[in-house]
Amino acid sequence: MSESFFFPASCPLPTGCKDVVELAHGGGGRLTHELVERLFRPAFATCNEDFTHDGATFDAGNERLAFTTDSYVVRPLFFPGGDIGSLAVNGTVNDLAMCGAEPRYLSVGLVIEEGFALATLQRVVESMRAAALAANVRIVTGDTKVVERGKGDGLYVNTSGVGVVRAPAPVVPQRVRAGDAVILSGDIGRHGMAILAVREGLGFETELASDCAPLADTVLALIDEGIELHCLRDLTRGGLATGLIEIAEAANVAMDLIEAAIPVLDPVRGACELLGLDPLYVANEGRFVAFVPADHAGGAVERLRRFDPRATVIGRVVSAHGRPAVRLNALGGARELDMLSGEQLPRIC
Amino acid sequence: MSESFFFPASCPLPTGCKDVVELAHGGGGRLTHELVERLFRPAFATCNEDFTHDGATFDAGNERLAFTTDSYVVRPLFFPGGDIGSLAVNGTVNDLAMCGAEPRYLSVGLVIEEGFALATLQRVVESMRAAALAANVRIVTGDTKVVERGKGDGLYVNTSGVGVVRAPAPVVPQRVRAGDAVILSGDIGRHGMAILAVREGLGFETELASDCAPLADTVLALIDEGIELHCLRDLTRGGLATGLIEIAEAANVAMDLIEAAIPVLDPVRGACELLGLDPLYVANEGRFVAFVPADHAGGAVERLRRFDPRATVIGRVVSAHGRPAVRLNALGGARELDMLSGEQLPRIC
Repeated sequence: MSESFFFPASCPLPTGCKDVVELAHGGGGRLTHELVERLFRPAFATCNEDFTHDGATFDAGNERLAFTTDSYVVRPLFFPGGDIGSLAVNGTVNDLAMCGAEPRYLSVGLVIEEGFALATLQRVVESMRAAALAANVRIVTGDTKVVERGKGDGLYVNTSGVGVVRAPAPVVPQRVRAGDAVILSGDIGRHGMAILAVREGLGFETELASDCAPLADTVLALIDEGIELHCLRDLTRGGLATGLIEIAEAANVAMDLIEAAIPVLDPVRGACELLGLDPLYVANEGRFVAFVPADHAGGAVERLRRFDPRATVIGRVVSAHGRPAVRLNALGGARELDMLSGEQLPRIC
Repeated sequence: MSESFFFPASCPLPTGCKDVVELAHGGGGRLTHELVERLFRPAFATCNEDFTHDGATFDAGNERLAFTTDSYVVRPLFFPGGDIGSLAVNGTVNDLAMCGAEPRYLSVGLVIEEGFALATLQRVVESMRAAALAANVRIVTGDTKVVERGKGDGLYVNTSGVGVVRAPAPVVPQRVRAGDAVILSGDIGRHGMAILAVREGLGFETELASDCAPLADTVLALIDEGIELHCLRDLTRGGLATGLIEIAEAANVAMDLIEAAIPVLDPVRGACELLGLDPLYVANEGRFVAFVPADHAGGAVERLRRFDPRATVIGRVVSAHGRPAVRLNALGGARELDMLSGEQLPRIC
């Protein structure tokens, strides 16, 4: 996910920053949110634009374009179900899709550590090529920088992307309203647990593969079907919970979720229980939530299930009564979800 | 500078890579060129597109857009005349300008090392804001990743940019032809020597400031004047010599330069002599060469001198007779310029 912001005529920066950047500032949770609010939004944002979405949109001639960027620092570079190359292509393709756009062109910026094997670089490049072909985007421009040994971690990849907006109305958090259905496109938690399993040698490697996949075809199918899309959000860092809380805050709404409706595969649930992690906060790279009017929910789920049979309605949007919140309703009662203040699992994307 | 390439239906990758990435692979010289040719071009390029320019161009509706990316790993982060923030904005603005485009929108991708001071991050962000305002571009989308201590070097910045092409014909190396004038927009070598001076504590700091500056207004002025621009190239890594050799090879032409015509400030020349460096290979961040038909050269230089009085014709394009070359003609005779095979000065951008 990337944040979008627009440029101000004049915005004073906050002063008195004395702290240092922590891993959690990159984790997608509360500290990332604060960094955006304290530093980036005052510097880059105007007051009448959307800062809370996966990309920016603007007019170019007679078309509306979407533009987004993401850096990828995943460790290890290769994991079950993907690698930094396919992740970098699909992640940016998905951010464009979340703007209701058809992805068209990608750029690639590489920061390579001195001593990195050219053969490994070749594997990553080949993976990017294959992922771009699969997602029907063209990698059209690139840049390579090399840093000294000890000043990187093998390879960091940035991809930026340009797409053509296909949705007839803006697909943004501000359009989410009470009454909307919350639809999840598939099961959650696979990507984060696949990374953790291989990184920590937990022995789940054979069972868990990342869900890393391009989502543009799925989104375009919804648009072609005439589904009214109020907002879309792919669930990366911070998982389902963080994505929903961000949207609840941006749209000033509350959400009531049904815990039992949220699909989590047994190996993911088992690994999470073993490690004391909550699958609602574990990263995904091929899942999204869609907010649609209640009378479009049936059609949306039916269309989504042609891509993933686990797609389902997991809750509904209700009035915030002044306090945005995401509530999880289970057999034993309801609890409110918070953004993580720490870092559950660093460098999963 | 970023390289541009387009995506193939099918291109086998070269096999048998056994080597590792060296600093010189990121230096912009021969090894960078080889990396692009051996790895990136086979993976990403089609056969009928331009791989040798600073950005890609494509149609979007009734407009033609330019798209480019660059990562910035300059060390130190702050230097006389600029910092990583202004460099990242101006560098990408300039790559768009070199496509004959008016820069419009930028993305920012940050890779921050754990422990980096938030106050320093704030200075960089403020510098980006000011540079974007000065260059009349909007920073519209961004992303932040944090890596563990020892896995970065404080801060790496990627900027990608989208602009609207204003030149009436393609501005690409392939349009350079025998008879074209080679015009240089100002004196060379300041950026690289400013970085080196402050990095190595050479005591030149007071005399040498980077030439880091946005070039889009200058290029758009040439276009508005009706100057026929065959090719433009901003002179970054590898300096004037590398930029010209790349274009000579891409266009299959030779160039005859007049050494005495190339402006080099005394402090730059002095520092280069002291350190055994050739100013022709030292990086710039606010200089470019323009290739224009001979009968447009006078008008172009006149227009350029309103921005920098040192703008001048430094040579002309001649037939390659089958062997592209760049020759430097001086009082004592002529010598042919080669791309650097090593790294003259790493991480200057």
